[in-house]
Amino acid sequence: MVTALGERLVRSAAAVDGPAGRLSDVRHWFRERAAADTSRVEVIPFAELRGWSFAADTHNLVHETGRFFSVEGLRVRMPGAPVERWTQPILHQPEIGILGILVKDFGGVPHFLMQAKMEPGNHGGLQLSPTVQATRSNYTRVHRGRAVPYVEYFRRPDRHRVLADVRQSEQGTWFFRKRNRNMLVEVAADEDVEVRDGFHWLTLGQLHRLLAEEDLVNMDARSVLAGLPAMPGGGRSGERGSVHRTADILSWITGLRSDREVVTERIPLRATDRWHRTEGRISHESGRYFSVMAVDVRAGGREVGGWTQPMIEPHGPGVAAFLLACPGGVPHVLVQARAEPGYTDVVELAPTVQCTPRNYAQLPGAAAQRFLDEVTGAPPERVRFDTVLSEEGGRFYHAFNRYLVVESAMDIVPPDDPDFRWMSLHQLLELIPHSHYLNVEARTLMACLHSVLAN
Amino acid sequence: MVTALGERLVRSAAAVDGPAGRLSDVRHWFRERAAADTSRVEVIPFAELRGWSFAADTHNLVHETGRFFSVEGLRVRMPGAPVERWTQPILHQPEIGILGILVKDFGGVPHFLMQAKMEPGNHGGLQLSPTVQATRSNYTRVHRGRAVPYVEYFRRPDRHRVLADVRQSEQGTWFFRKRNRNMLVEVAADEDVEVRDGFHWLTLGQLHRLLAEEDLVNMDARSVLAGLPAMPGGGRSGERGSVHRTADILSWITGLRSDREVVTERIPLRATDRWHRTEGRISHESGRYFSVMAVDVRAGGREVGGWTQPMIEPHGPGVAAFLLACPGGVPHVLVQARAEPGYTDVVELAPTVQCTPRNYAQLPGAAAQRFLDEVTGAPPERVRFDTVLSEEGGRFYHAFNRYLVVESAMDIVPPDDPDFRWMSLHQLLELIPHSHYLNVEARTLMACLHSVLAN
Repeated sequence: MVTALGERLVRSAAAVDGPAGRLSDVRHWFRERAAADTSRVEVIPFAELRGWSFAADTHNLVHETGRFFSVEGLRVRMPGAPVERWTQPILHQPEIGILGILVKDFGGVPHFLMQAKMEPGNHGGLQLSPTVQATRSNYTRVHRGRAVPYVEYFRRPDRHRVLADVRQSEQGTWFFRKRNRNMLVEVAADEDVEVRDGFHWLTLGQLHRLLAEEDLVNMDARSVLAGLPAMPGGGRSGERGSVHRTADILSWITGLRSDREVVTERIPLRATDRWHRTEGRISHESGRYFSVMAVDVRAGGREVGGWTQPMIEPHGPGVAAFLLACPGGVPHVLVQARAEPGYTDVVELAPTVQCTPRNYAQLPGAAAQRFLDEVTGAPPERVRFDTVLSEEGGRFYHAFNRYLVVESAMDIVPPDDPDFRWMSLHQLLELIPHSHYLNVEARTLMACLHSVLAN
Repeated sequence: MVTALGERLVRSAAAVDGPAGRLSDVRHWFRERAAADTSRVEVIPFAELRGWSFAADTHNLVHETGRFFSVEGLRVRMPGAPVERWTQPILHQPEIGILGILVKDFGGVPHFLMQAKMEPGNHGGLQLSPTVQATRSNYTRVHRGRAVPYVEYFRRPDRHRVLADVRQSEQGTWFFRKRNRNMLVEVAADEDVEVRDGFHWLTLGQLHRLLAEEDLVNMDARSVLAGLPAMPGGGRSGERGSVHRTADILSWITGLRSDREVVTERIPLRATDRWHRTEGRISHESGRYFSVMAVDVRAGGREVGGWTQPMIEPHGPGVAAFLLACPGGVPHVLVQARAEPGYTDVVELAPTVQCTPRNYAQLPGAAAQRFLDEVTGAPPERVRFDTVLSEEGGRFYHAFNRYLVVESAMDIVPPDDPDFRWMSLHQLLELIPHSHYLNVEARTLMACLHSVLAN
């Protein structure tokens, strides 16, 4: 019998040792997979890329098929921002891929089918990934590759029970308007689903435990899990108990999206200013931000062959944190309205703090640094979550963020601050089924908050 | 005392003769305004435009200040559509304007401050318009014009009670990604609001009566009224009683937006194919679709001076209709997922039927014609709403649509039709606070449905 989803998720969050296996079994399985993975990733000069080259006219870094993605230039104008004009390299990948997690009930407890997947940007090799993580070229088999396992559940979700299906943005400083479809699809409890090599059913409780371990649950998995339409800690209750009315929150977002100017123009990579290319890197002359570089991947285990590809390597780890408060027992986080040049719609809701501290060292007091001290200097008893996690390992090389949830007083920000609002988690849950409200870092923290509040 | 909005709207919908005036008073006021309006609109050749000219290189029709809007070209590719490739002229107006209606309680009954406003495209001169209808250049007074009355309520809505504030699209066949901010802002019942010349407080009941009269309530007013966050016929109840789960509806939309290709490219007006310019019109060689033309406006009444401007004149009236069914007493409409080249996000939810019948006469059986017979051939007892209304009179010259709501059986469409879904009105109400779900024709029909169901 299907009971209300919120109650079922409570059971799943409580099940650290579930009907389909104990947490120690999951760890054992994952360690075995990791041990068997003999893939190797090597940083190479651009000249050793196979199938990739710099176009003669634009110097864009493109694949010979015109597919996958390309590294191009972007000119940005953001009047009023700490830096108002700049150019930069950016990844252009117009296809909308699928990030999907299959859900199935075992003994009344929802389980999530996760994959132990190697990606070249991962520091430790394997990470826990969604059931399906595929670009459109992948799953439509344009490249005549092997079929993507389980993709049929996500290409015809109407044959199953859709829990979530929404296009969401990814890093707006590195991607130009990249979106992926984030899906949670539940199959009937009596439907047979073959567990293929490299896959495992996990409870939410198991995922929550593993989420608190460094560098283990990958970005795509976090993004999809954030889309759970109910809190494992309770049902949806809309704006009740929230410090701001939802209509006021939406009006704040609409106002910013109407009034704030973010003008972007795709330009040839050659036309970026102060970015210089060496044999193996394209970097900013200040040494800040990130480099474009290239890797050679030799896939091990049961995977066949290998490939080379360009990647983005950020310079220095970032910090992404939500300040948390619970007025009247209702959890709220301090949300930042943040403009990034690659966003589809001007601003998205971001963590309270989201920055790579080292990039801002030479700027005058910028919004990106606000509340950084509150977060990194908080006494341990206020820190509810603190784990270093990786960003997408298919495009970003060793891209780490320290994700934190830190308790705070509410009066550290005025109620009508132009860039910040306290929002209840229930209000965020109501926005998550719609595109382009929560940015990818905020979605990671939503998944973390689920884990914090379920305990 | 502020009671729940739904209940207050029921009272307002029931108040045809309200505490702030009777319907006959409103009619009398409007007739007097119309009689006093001595403005004249004359169709002129392009050469008589003042301040507007065709750019030497592109032939785009632009204003000398670079402001207002421009007439440019658009190249469209929609694989799978009845016509897969075409070029056309299109209006480009990147600024986000404000369409706002001020709301105030008189004797416990919410009233809406409406303006009797002349616009050059209106057939009869004046129409009932929102409190504020202003482009950004207008209200920031870039042109040093007179201040826009009441705009301060909408520029600082956080000082009042926001009922709705959302950017919505307009006609995607005539505008390129045009959005306006649709706002309903309520002032405190004890706050004095001066009623300026040309303005009047109306109840919802009065608006509903006038909405059923031809060509009286303008498009912007209908679009804003559609944003009422509660049904005058009852509270919000989410997906209860709906034939599809909301998650399934959202998945259907996400699937279409991910898979359907709509590729547009802004091109010089000169580069449009099969469109020809004469002294006074730019028209398609088939005589179908629309023309770009120009008018000279001599403003009368208390307005000062006049102006000239280009406009779009559609060829032949259109039909926009929702089929309506009430399974289990829950009103549902048959929603179409419709791609128009000017939309920001691939498809929007449109009326069951939306077409200019004459444009499709020579095409093979196209989706745009589906259900047209059910709508126009319905017996009178099934027709719940049937009124000819105008589209935006500031840009479109004599642009009429016949808006209908027609009762229907539900089984005229399979539940998994790729382009259509039955959605409950409560489900539509939950989407209306978010941008780019309901297109402008569907929003007009939502306002009409409010009026139908309130009675």
